[in-house]
Amino acid sequence: MTHLIAVGGSDAGVSAALRARELDPSVDVTVVVADRYPNFSICGIPYYFSGEVRPWQSLAHRTAADLEATGMALRLDTWATDIDVAGQKLIVRRPDGASEALPYDALVVGTGALPSHAGIAGLAALGPDDGLHVIHSMGDTFALDRHLEERDPKTAIIIGAGYVGLEMAEALTARGIRVTQLQRGPEVLSTLDPELGALVHGELDAHGVDVVVNSTVTNVEKTDARLTVHGTHGGTPFSRTADLVLAVVGVRPNTELLERAGATLGAGHAVVVDEGMRTGLPHIYSAGDGTITHHRLLGLTYLPLGTTAHKQGRVAGENALGGDAKFAGSVGTQVVKVFDLVAARTGLRDHEAAASGFAPLTTAAAADDHKRYYPGAHPIDFRITGDTRTGRLLGAQLVGKLGTEVAKRVDTYATALYAGLTVEQISELDLSYTPPLGSPWDAVQAATQAWSLAVRDAEVGVRAHRG
Amino acid sequence: MTHLIAVGGSDAGVSAALRARELDPSVDVTVVVADRYPNFSICGIPYYFSGEVRPWQSLAHRTAADLEATGMALRLDTWATDIDVAGQKLIVRRPDGASEALPYDALVVGTGALPSHAGIAGLAALGPDDGLHVIHSMGDTFALDRHLEERDPKTAIIIGAGYVGLEMAEALTARGIRVTQLQRGPEVLSTLDPELGALVHGELDAHGVDVVVNSTVTNVEKTDARLTVHGTHGGTPFSRTADLVLAVVGVRPNTELLERAGATLGAGHAVVVDEGMRTGLPHIYSAGDGTITHHRLLGLTYLPLGTTAHKQGRVAGENALGGDAKFAGSVGTQVVKVFDLVAARTGLRDHEAAASGFAPLTTAAAADDHKRYYPGAHPIDFRITGDTRTGRLLGAQLVGKLGTEVAKRVDTYATALYAGLTVEQISELDLSYTPPLGSPWDAVQAATQAWSLAVRDAEVGVRAHRG
Repeated sequence: MTHLIAVGGSDAGVSAALRARELDPSVDVTVVVADRYPNFSICGIPYYFSGEVRPWQSLAHRTAADLEATGMALRLDTWATDIDVAGQKLIVRRPDGASEALPYDALVVGTGALPSHAGIAGLAALGPDDGLHVIHSMGDTFALDRHLEERDPKTAIIIGAGYVGLEMAEALTARGIRVTQLQRGPEVLSTLDPELGALVHGELDAHGVDVVVNSTVTNVEKTDARLTVHGTHGGTPFSRTADLVLAVVGVRPNTELLERAGATLGAGHAVVVDEGMRTGLPHIYSAGDGTITHHRLLGLTYLPLGTTAHKQGRVAGENALGGDAKFAGSVGTQVVKVFDLVAARTGLRDHEAAASGFAPLTTAAAADDHKRYYPGAHPIDFRITGDTRTGRLLGAQLVGKLGTEVAKRVDTYATALYAGLTVEQISELDLSYTPPLGSPWDAVQAATQAWSLAVRDAEVGVRAHRG
Repeated sequence: MTHLIAVGGSDAGVSAALRARELDPSVDVTVVVADRYPNFSICGIPYYFSGEVRPWQSLAHRTAADLEATGMALRLDTWATDIDVAGQKLIVRRPDGASEALPYDALVVGTGALPSHAGIAGLAALGPDDGLHVIHSMGDTFALDRHLEERDPKTAIIIGAGYVGLEMAEALTARGIRVTQLQRGPEVLSTLDPELGALVHGELDAHGVDVVVNSTVTNVEKTDARLTVHGTHGGTPFSRTADLVLAVVGVRPNTELLERAGATLGAGHAVVVDEGMRTGLPHIYSAGDGTITHHRLLGLTYLPLGTTAHKQGRVAGENALGGDAKFAGSVGTQVVKVFDLVAARTGLRDHEAAASGFAPLTTAAAADDHKRYYPGAHPIDFRITGDTRTGRLLGAQLVGKLGTEVAKRVDTYATALYAGLTVEQISELDLSYTPPLGSPWDAVQAATQAWSLAVRDAEVGVRAHRG
């Protein structure tokens, strides 16, 4: 092994390159980056727009100089056009427009995902100059930044109310822009049960975001210097006009390079890999948002997340050097801050568990983040999903005020899911306690104890019914 | 099963009583309480003295009325003097001084612990009226409260710098009292490695607490209306005088009742029980601070903690009704807030692991609580202990600013210890990430990755040395 090439300057590619350099400093590593912004934190972009993060350069996890200091080479503004699989060469278009073939011993492809248009007419034809934006790269960031600086928009429509959509609603509101948020489903943040999504909805309301759920956007068109969004709301047509439209309706895997090289596509049309991130094409690995996700509860799925891209990239980097690392699998842990609320989930929700062959029960509970007698206690709302046949914990969702340590509480469940613990075993965990920061039974345990009691009551009910 | 008696109104006794009522509302449950304050949060007392918690009544986890609403009977101001094991009767001294025999079908003893004098001369002879205080019961609380209100002390000496000692240093400082804190060992908070204890020491310094480490107190005597503490500091005699002395030098199990009934004492002179909290005496269970602790890494030990008392009490309450619950074992998770710092640990430290037959390595690391580009990021200091033979995680210690979610981060390690995970597996955990609250590799994982690299480097060193 003498030369590893990683395609993609985001989480997966850079993680693979860093891991390879860490494990064997004698290996040559080249990272091919389509733009000039390797290793930027795409998840941080909303905080640039809110004004909390300045300048934009600080969004870099590591600077180009930091990366080069590890001994890797960066090829910026370089576009990977093709792979010569048999010849073990990556064909790239250089900044000067010329084509070049880069020989490799191992290739890790981390080309990520692209914004989806979700079948909305007009999106493909409109761009930043028209006032239509996406948030997926630093280029998108600069385009929106220019729009905000030069045209001083007063109103914005955000299509979508997932993680990025919610963070951008907060960011634009913080800048004094009046935001309308359109959500197709019955509640915002559809990765949570609507009972918890409603809490996030309330937080948006409280901060002046105009949320319209159950609204399907059909097309976007330019009307003078503004944009008009057309759709249906509960079956009734509606139109809304704003100075700016941000479309954040999901992503699709960017598989073009590997597909043309002969890779197989699977779940979500992402590139199929084994647990070692091998594509099946010789010496070629795939990692990150363009790649299928091994999920510890669901098996193969497509669930693009930065945390997973880091882990997959690390595995790919190790195996590219002849290692035998395995991606242990996602459990779908996610967290988002929306104004002063934090919402998190891990594992499966009830309908997902049922669809996967489990016999789920989901219960709701609320428990204080710390002893109520100590100032500043706030309830956290939980929903716990467990398998009634085996008692196994299947998932947890929680929403609480910023400061209630929701993000790290979901990690306890995520760790329990990794280890395959039962709901009952959560009560056996020796979790930390001091009155300002917890309870003798942590809120995490109070929530699972409510699940256990509900299961018992259901069983008692069944017995009484049968008896 | 018709009548369960729990002796002790604190965590273990009340937990047993609550669990029994929860599982079978037809069972009569009586809780015998030595004072008038059942189910008070002893851990909360320092926050009463700091003024953060008022009135003292709010320190009750549940009020007497709450407890009685579950259907249990409370016998307040009632002292359990003896157990008639063969006759299945608990002998109590009633508030009127008369003796009474209470028949039971099952008895759960949760008599807790008593303040230790740690061999310091004078402590046994002095009391609150002399200005010498302990903090172990509501009675102690009222005595100190009276002292503070009536005598307005300007200076205090706290003997001991464990959890309660540190919390009381903060509380008395918050009230404007000049505090001297005497610690026998080389650093405060001796349950952590001194490298991390030093950070807590610095926090005490910064808030004006006069900390004297390596100071052994030999005796305390009354000098006019004040108290003088004598001892040696680094071998040199010293004396310090203050208006008030608080002795918080640990506890000893209060086993008198069960010892006289024939129970066996074990680790730390605490009552021996099996994992079902059975004492071996027929129908008699023991739980809480008077009881040995099953530890998942150490085996049998004595580690009195409120969290453990709750769990042991719950097991005892279930088994008293004929159940077969098992206490799954402690991993020694603890957390304390000291001014604006939070310090936590779980599992074993290096010397504890070595003494238990492991081949430990302990490494230090610091990692930001969330992405540095987002405002308010602070480093958390970690020490990770793992077994170099098996790779198993053995323990974690962490100290960070209040707000860095140290308390819930230690819970991830505690969950991993419960499940027997390796240090490497921590990197496989699907932990939550959003820039304001974490990193793609959480700080928890950055710390264990540092351990893995150190092990690898040590092995490389060994190989190089051998080669």
